[in-house]
Amino acid sequence: MAKRLKYWGWGCEGDGLPARDREALLSTLSRGFGIHGHHTGDSSPPPIDEIPLPPPRLDPPAALASMCTQEPYERVLHSFGQSQPDSIRIFAGDFAHAPDVVAYPRGEADIAALMQWAGEARAALVPYGGGSSVVGGVTPDIGGEYNGVVTLDMSRMNRVLEVDTESRAARIQGGARGPELEAALKPRGVTLRHFPQSFQHSTLGGWIATRSGGHFATLYTHIDDLVESVRCVTPAGVMESRRLPGSGAGPSPDRLLIGSEGALGVITEAWVRVQGRVRHKAAAGFRFPDFLQAAGAVREVSQAGLFPANVRIVDGVELAVNGAGDGSFTLMVVSFESSDHPVDAWMDRAEQICLDHGGLPDADWRTDPGAHLKGTVGAWREAFIKMPYNREVLTPLGIISDTFESAITWDRFEAFYHAVREAAREAIREATGREGAVSCRFSHAYPDGPAPYFAFHCAADPDGMLDQWRTIKAMVSDAVIDNGGTITHHHAVGRDHQPWYEKQRPPLFGDVLARAKAHLDPKGILNPGVLVPHPRPGAVRKRPRR
Amino acid sequence: MAKRLKYWGWGCEGDGLPARDREALLSTLSRGFGIHGHHTGDSSPPPIDEIPLPPPRLDPPAALASMCTQEPYERVLHSFGQSQPDSIRIFAGDFAHAPDVVAYPRGEADIAALMQWAGEARAALVPYGGGSSVVGGVTPDIGGEYNGVVTLDMSRMNRVLEVDTESRAARIQGGARGPELEAALKPRGVTLRHFPQSFQHSTLGGWIATRSGGHFATLYTHIDDLVESVRCVTPAGVMESRRLPGSGAGPSPDRLLIGSEGALGVITEAWVRVQGRVRHKAAAGFRFPDFLQAAGAVREVSQAGLFPANVRIVDGVELAVNGAGDGSFTLMVVSFESSDHPVDAWMDRAEQICLDHGGLPDADWRTDPGAHLKGTVGAWREAFIKMPYNREVLTPLGIISDTFESAITWDRFEAFYHAVREAAREAIREATGREGAVSCRFSHAYPDGPAPYFAFHCAADPDGMLDQWRTIKAMVSDAVIDNGGTITHHHAVGRDHQPWYEKQRPPLFGDVLARAKAHLDPKGILNPGVLVPHPRPGAVRKRPRR
Repeated sequence: MAKRLKYWGWGCEGDGLPARDREALLSTLSRGFGIHGHHTGDSSPPPIDEIPLPPPRLDPPAALASMCTQEPYERVLHSFGQSQPDSIRIFAGDFAHAPDVVAYPRGEADIAALMQWAGEARAALVPYGGGSSVVGGVTPDIGGEYNGVVTLDMSRMNRVLEVDTESRAARIQGGARGPELEAALKPRGVTLRHFPQSFQHSTLGGWIATRSGGHFATLYTHIDDLVESVRCVTPAGVMESRRLPGSGAGPSPDRLLIGSEGALGVITEAWVRVQGRVRHKAAAGFRFPDFLQAAGAVREVSQAGLFPANVRIVDGVELAVNGAGDGSFTLMVVSFESSDHPVDAWMDRAEQICLDHGGLPDADWRTDPGAHLKGTVGAWREAFIKMPYNREVLTPLGIISDTFESAITWDRFEAFYHAVREAAREAIREATGREGAVSCRFSHAYPDGPAPYFAFHCAADPDGMLDQWRTIKAMVSDAVIDNGGTITHHHAVGRDHQPWYEKQRPPLFGDVLARAKAHLDPKGILNPGVLVPHPRPGAVRKRPRR
Repeated sequence: MAKRLKYWGWGCEGDGLPARDREALLSTLSRGFGIHGHHTGDSSPPPIDEIPLPPPRLDPPAALASMCTQEPYERVLHSFGQSQPDSIRIFAGDFAHAPDVVAYPRGEADIAALMQWAGEARAALVPYGGGSSVVGGVTPDIGGEYNGVVTLDMSRMNRVLEVDTESRAARIQGGARGPELEAALKPRGVTLRHFPQSFQHSTLGGWIATRSGGHFATLYTHIDDLVESVRCVTPAGVMESRRLPGSGAGPSPDRLLIGSEGALGVITEAWVRVQGRVRHKAAAGFRFPDFLQAAGAVREVSQAGLFPANVRIVDGVELAVNGAGDGSFTLMVVSFESSDHPVDAWMDRAEQICLDHGGLPDADWRTDPGAHLKGTVGAWREAFIKMPYNREVLTPLGIISDTFESAITWDRFEAFYHAVREAAREAIREATGREGAVSCRFSHAYPDGPAPYFAFHCAADPDGMLDQWRTIKAMVSDAVIDNGGTITHHHAVGRDHQPWYEKQRPPLFGDVLARAKAHLDPKGILNPGVLVPHPRPGAVRKRPRR
């Protein structure tokens, strides 16, 4: 029997940080950064039956009852995603917005029927993949005047339907999670190799809807690049693009759905581009005395046309917080992989660039094929995998532990980095009255700029934790937008980023999106408040003509 | 003083095929393929003042007069693009649809003023870059009930405004032609390296509006991949996206404009990604006995993660028609280039793949750095550059010479190839009662499929040439769509592909596009009939709910 998903954090019940790692994390934060938790008694989440859930405001009609549930565990599980405010509210027992119904469609006809019902019942429908949103994308706290909320959980539409090894492509259902789809691709000798940190508990449909960023630090960074065609169910009908390796016929229909975050339709299937399985690999690590110096090496590698699978830098604070360094250096990880040919010539050149920029080798890729599992590179890798478990330890202790990420062109990067890092530090001081730990890494790198990824930790007041988080979030988001970045490179917009998304997006494009939604979702039932602010049928906002 | 553009074909007055090439072309078609022209007297185009032009139906208001012209040469020049039907109509003297006014805006305020006037005057506005459309995209034969047509020629907005060498990006005006923008980038040590066949006489704005396909056969195939942000003027105002190396904030605003073909707005500026200048290059040619065998080599190279700048195959007929082969073999061209590192390891591996698939070296890249200028590769390259001049020779002789192109996944490629090639042959027989020459090459190649590019030549009846072309076009377009391809990989939709584009495009996406247009261009003045069929203000088509 499969383990049940935790409602209060990452992964399944029984999974989490071993006691040793937990102690190490708290000790590092406390001794290294002066961030102390508040031990206020029992920090374990309450049993399901002690959570006060409002009675469901609506019941599914008989024809849909068999795919729907109102079980308390299901309603609790689907009340939140994996964001910091979600975590705070979970431990505060704030479940008043729990979905009234959780539906598990088995096919497109089920989805269409659910949409029909939701439209008639004036209920909101929140598409839900793996529930891993860190931006409130699946948190059904929707506001507006709806008679109830139905969460549409795609996990029963999880099959790999076709594998075309000749074209290296596969047709996969939207609800397939990372491990499920890789397991089905493996016997055919191919792999999607899209490994977001959420890989275990996120779905292909979710990745496409949120423009997920994966394993590849260059080239195929977003799932966007791996999408050959998309099929989606909207309240107005099915929309499916032609399966093509490339096209120049008008604006791309796929690009309307990629990043649509459940606001325009539910992605039921996609043809995606898969890869041959990796047969050749080389990974190396380099230590730099300074983050910006390492950034220079990333820039040159990114502009060299080498296309490494990985080219990431992690600053000293981030390494220290995660027990992978003493804080005195920045780590740069570079790796190449190929299903076809040895990658030594590629790695040789990248190494030369790193050395030219003053990097010192951390582990030797030439003599040790397992170098990526050793040294600081290995320690960081280990920490990266466990990281999602940290929050359930920290939130009950009143320690805020969050991340935000962006992308910026190289010419503006240095100023952006200083301004945003300082804004985060200042925000923590202002919100909590204490110093926190702010760190930065690059999640992805392009020839024209990096995708900086910031993390911060700070001690909050147990009572005001949500407000303190909001203050910090607003200040860092303002800094990201004011300094020219994007409010998200791959975490998506969700509910948490909507105000800054509206600042970033060209206003006329916002109008077009509102009109797209008015047509595809005329009753405004799909994930209300995400991307298009509070849509109402027939009430598309009018902009003054300029 | 700059030479004047020809109104009847490619390039400037005085440019064209030398007599020797002209004779060789006609001789090849005649002796090699039994395609004989009709020598019906003088085949030179009539002087401008002998072309019957209707009087302009509207005059610009005084405030706009200085940027507008109604000169016969200008009206004639802007009456057509570079398509086969355009050419037939030019030599038939069919200029009844000439634009009434040709406007040369010098800035965005001029464009906004022209839009304002056109809206009030109920005139259509046809954005015009270099006029190189081969699909009727700039042919102002618009139908519908307009009081006149204004062609908006962007050639005075042709500057490179900023070069950011750190991020390798440049801000360039939409009206900048290929040579203009490369000349401005060169002193800064960078290059866009987007070289469509139309490079000399096409513009950045046109490339973006039509999703132009460039020099790179893999990876950065379409201009899409080089766009960092877009700025465009619409009748509803200015729309400008944030300049970012990557983003995951909602559906991409740029992707609405990339491929919008002048129907949603006029692209006035874009930030584009430039490259370091090429310092290392290797190019090789291989001969294959069979086109499909060569296609197998292209597939393996494309799936190997090598990302060659060029990986193209040209079949025997195409080589023979262009005097670059005896018709007995297929040529495969492979090249790598880099601004950073020698590319020998890359070329070694690609060569091995070509040899494994039965290719025989055409010129030796190892011993001769100029190999790409020699052998069949050099001959093909030479012919490719001159190719656009052929048509002005052939049309007056009643010889149809046209191309169409598509993209298809590898699993369906072989069936697609046979079906489409046979459909083209059959179409020529049906339309003309004679055999023609049908050839195929790959213009671009992706891991999941190639972009096949077909050319055909046939003798038509001097009187029925346009109808015969239409019959052939319809039959081959049906075959492309029925066999799963895209109606265009990089030629765009224009007016010629609209019926098939509507078959290919998801209907709901067509609705969204119509709504986007209704908002951005409420009076329906922009390039009417392109992408959105005959828009009328306030009359967005209603689709039955499914």
